[in-house]
Amino acid sequence: MIAPNLTLLTDLYQLTMAYGYWKKGMGQRESVFHLFFRRHPFKGNHTIACGLQNAIEYLKNLNFGKEDIAYLATIKSGDEKPLFSDDFLDYLLKMEFQCDVDAVPEGTLVFPHQPLLRIKGPLIQAQLIETALLNIINFSTLIATKASRIVRAAAGDTVLEFGLRRAQGPNGAISASRAAYIGGCHATSNVLAGKMYDIPVKGTHAHSWVMCFDSELEAFQTYADAMPGNCIFLVDTYDTEEGVANAIKMGQSLRKRGYEMAGIRLDSGDLSALGKLSRQMLDDAGFPNAKIVASNDLDEYRIHNLKEKDSKITVWGVGTRLATAFDEPALGGVYKLAAIRDDNQQWDYKVKLSEQAIKVSNPGILNVLRIENEDRPEADVIFNEEFPSLQHMISFSAENIRFSKDKGKLLLQPIFRKGKCIYQQPSIHDIRKRTLCQLDLFDNIENYPVGLEKELHELKNRLIATKK
Amino acid sequence: MIAPNLTLLTDLYQLTMAYGYWKKGMGQRESVFHLFFRRHPFKGNHTIACGLQNAIEYLKNLNFGKEDIAYLATIKSGDEKPLFSDDFLDYLLKMEFQCDVDAVPEGTLVFPHQPLLRIKGPLIQAQLIETALLNIINFSTLIATKASRIVRAAAGDTVLEFGLRRAQGPNGAISASRAAYIGGCHATSNVLAGKMYDIPVKGTHAHSWVMCFDSELEAFQTYADAMPGNCIFLVDTYDTEEGVANAIKMGQSLRKRGYEMAGIRLDSGDLSALGKLSRQMLDDAGFPNAKIVASNDLDEYRIHNLKEKDSKITVWGVGTRLATAFDEPALGGVYKLAAIRDDNQQWDYKVKLSEQAIKVSNPGILNVLRIENEDRPEADVIFNEEFPSLQHMISFSAENIRFSKDKGKLLLQPIFRKGKCIYQQPSIHDIRKRTLCQLDLFDNIENYPVGLEKELHELKNRLIATKK
Repeated sequence: MIAPNLTLLTDLYQLTMAYGYWKKGMGQRESVFHLFFRRHPFKGNHTIACGLQNAIEYLKNLNFGKEDIAYLATIKSGDEKPLFSDDFLDYLLKMEFQCDVDAVPEGTLVFPHQPLLRIKGPLIQAQLIETALLNIINFSTLIATKASRIVRAAAGDTVLEFGLRRAQGPNGAISASRAAYIGGCHATSNVLAGKMYDIPVKGTHAHSWVMCFDSELEAFQTYADAMPGNCIFLVDTYDTEEGVANAIKMGQSLRKRGYEMAGIRLDSGDLSALGKLSRQMLDDAGFPNAKIVASNDLDEYRIHNLKEKDSKITVWGVGTRLATAFDEPALGGVYKLAAIRDDNQQWDYKVKLSEQAIKVSNPGILNVLRIENEDRPEADVIFNEEFPSLQHMISFSAENIRFSKDKGKLLLQPIFRKGKCIYQQPSIHDIRKRTLCQLDLFDNIENYPVGLEKELHELKNRLIATKK
Repeated sequence: MIAPNLTLLTDLYQLTMAYGYWKKGMGQRESVFHLFFRRHPFKGNHTIACGLQNAIEYLKNLNFGKEDIAYLATIKSGDEKPLFSDDFLDYLLKMEFQCDVDAVPEGTLVFPHQPLLRIKGPLIQAQLIETALLNIINFSTLIATKASRIVRAAAGDTVLEFGLRRAQGPNGAISASRAAYIGGCHATSNVLAGKMYDIPVKGTHAHSWVMCFDSELEAFQTYADAMPGNCIFLVDTYDTEEGVANAIKMGQSLRKRGYEMAGIRLDSGDLSALGKLSRQMLDDAGFPNAKIVASNDLDEYRIHNLKEKDSKITVWGVGTRLATAFDEPALGGVYKLAAIRDDNQQWDYKVKLSEQAIKVSNPGILNVLRIENEDRPEADVIFNEEFPSLQHMISFSAENIRFSKDKGKLLLQPIFRKGKCIYQQPSIHDIRKRTLCQLDLFDNIENYPVGLEKELHELKNRLIATKK
């Protein structure tokens, strides 16, 4: 996160609703919202939760400054009068975050309809933070998931994230670099992201380097003189075959000085044919360990295809299609009210109806129990924490599944209590390891059972029937 | 822009190349780079330049802080030795921006291969800023162009940008809100963008507001009590027809208090059918001026379609598909070396070759002359400022066009001279007006002639022939 205070990073309607609740005296009423998504991105069968650290920083800094309030005082209603009263603005100025927040730790594999975040607290506050939380979690989760797909396609090869120049703004790039590393990438080209988040950074030279010299060989020579231990030569500025031949000459000259050329990079043309040709040339010249790095509009599909063709590429530089999630650049995460205290302090459970069953939200104070058998997940049960008898679930594919709650672990962990952060953030490297372990644990992820605990299932059906 | 200093927002290879130039004593050699794109986004026939203000802020703040240098000192080469020498890091710490920058003002309609920015200055500096400039200009230009397409489809209707929750990170959202306004949108839901950039902000209430009350009517009533002058009721939480009926009841009650209901909002279902039904119900009840606002995955294609169906919608809330440019989420802008001083201080012109003719870059110190006839653009001539005799161009469709340079105006304006900003930034409202005027000026934009001035065309061909 770049800005210390993003309190105004919200839709105006969150503030008009806050004003309405405040005027009606409902602002402090305890309520529960869940942030979740309804289907996996990229027509895939898994999603990697990400963005919690940025969400925590946002919430820790949640407070309206005097400048913010002065700005809000200038906003006019449709009738040209000030939209907000001075009393209300004064209330906002003094507001302190009081909510409980529970969340799925970053790097966890999650499924549709499971809350990634649960916010419980005063209605005004829980509502106000909707937009920024969605913005932060949607994007990071999208990119971590995209990265994990690309890393899987690379099947053990190194994946470098090169997306900065085409990412959606500076912070889009920085968030993408972080999420891509969490999703399993090995390094980024983005130096500021490297500094901010302790992500390894990588890079050698561009075509413009080669163009600045009279010949490619002179360009390689000058680079090798400056950084003999960091030589991956970009070979396609003029003619790739000639470029590889020049790289080999430099490799021989480096060896005389006691250095090994790290490899070459291909950035255009038929990567499969050029990869094979380069490998052959390098091997024949005595450079079997020189790596072949490729870039140029790569994604999981192209990497898979190139690996099937035995392209000999072993390092993948992935930019635009990763950092913008090019084929599906937004995760459709939503944030829905699930319960609110009534006048007698009892929970009044809420569902949002829709003609589409997938869009009907789940009521309750939800958590997710991941049932495990010797560390291998067997089913995920979404349940209401107010209904403690956990024995039976109805999966979304309508299976009836019995389970023992002793064999499960809770996905949602306590993050804030009464507005104070109580969560010890793991290192980015530990989060990345979690991601890399996750996918291997699921045996049959396409058919992995996820559903509602039976009492919750019945509550939801009752509420739908009442509203109809 | 959120962060004051984005100097490290660059690909690592910009720094390794800088190190190489510095070691070779070439760092101060004067060079020229152009930032341009090769085809219009969205299979369209126009692009709106945007992002210059953010680029200016980035360049004004360009300098390495001590923390940045300390971080760079930790980066290791492939052989585990420090990648950069202390001398070089000391040089970076003391570096001051010295380049000349020329740019096309924001809100200008531009075409492929035209420089949006031209950087002229010490090779190290002009190279170092490539990545951040691409990041900033690519994204803002993409979104301003998307917005202008949507605003055109809306054909005079109001367009509101609602993309914050699905945008690519906080800054992705803020940049998108600014670019969307410049592209012609009327307002944003994003309060922070409103504050930062003086963009009008709009918003009323969400489904969760309705769900917090025992009935929809009570929800509307409470909202109307709080903000009687700002009433656009969201009518589809439970049943849209009932929702419109409830809105009408509230409209009647508001009228008794001397207020007019501003309108209703539809956010799901068949927007064409529901729009017509709502219009009929509102008209029949005596609310012909109540607006019908629609949202839900809108873009230029859906708006065009709904207008063709005479949906009666007159205000369009556009979110995800605008703020992420969903159907093409990255502009492929590039940044290419075009000239560098040789040892005799003469310009050594450069082209980047490619098997694809469209990817061969243009040499020179370029500007663009837009030839006009009574304010209507007739042709754009890309020319080398070193070749003053402007009379003849070869368009990209190989037409030979004679022109008089007296009837043209230059698209590139001076922004920085020797590292100092000399540009008076126009207000965002003036930029937006420029955008809105532009499209009307071009008579036949699909076939608008763009090309290279004849001498430049010949220089390019000579350079290509030499390299082959």
